[in-house]
Amino acid sequence: MKVAVNVHLKKGVLDPQGKAVLHALETLGFKNVEDVRVGKQIIIEINTNNKEEAIKEAKEMADKLLANPVIENYKIEVKE
Amino acid sequence: MKVAVNVHLKKGVLDPQGKAVLHALETLGFKNVEDVRVGKQIIIEINTNNKEEAIKEAKEMADKLLANPVIENYKIEVKE
Repeated sequence: MKVAVNVHLKKGVLDPQGKAVLHALETLGFKNVEDVRVGKQIIIEINTNNKEEAIKEAKEMADKLLANPVIENYKIEVKE
Repeated sequence: MKVAVNVHLKKGVLDPQGKAVLHALETLGFKNVEDVRVGKQIIIEINTNNKEEAIKEAKEMADKLLANPVIENYKIEVKE
């Protein structure tokens, strides 16, 4: 089962990479862009067919390793 | 409208960051993990209510700036 863990900086935490992308997009002529946030998407292949188990395990991985709870939020998405 | 551009290394391109995460998860006792790929998730706030237009614009941004077509694939996802 493929699970995606999407890790993003919390609201209020400065995201300089996002700001750099925003300015680059504006320079390229994209005038409709209001905000950009850059995060990580970690795709994990878990050897189980149980959706609930995969989500539970991915949550544990995010808490223990993938996200820094002080400055980051994460969301888990089952891909297939 | 919020659009996510998920950028990942193409299959066959070595992903050392993913491998490092895989080994770290194994060390932490997660035995069911088969593979890990680490990519970027770029969330873009586009000032439009037209879903098709938002996707089209995000695709252009990905082609011009966000992804390196030589080694990376991207997928666009409308968030809201």
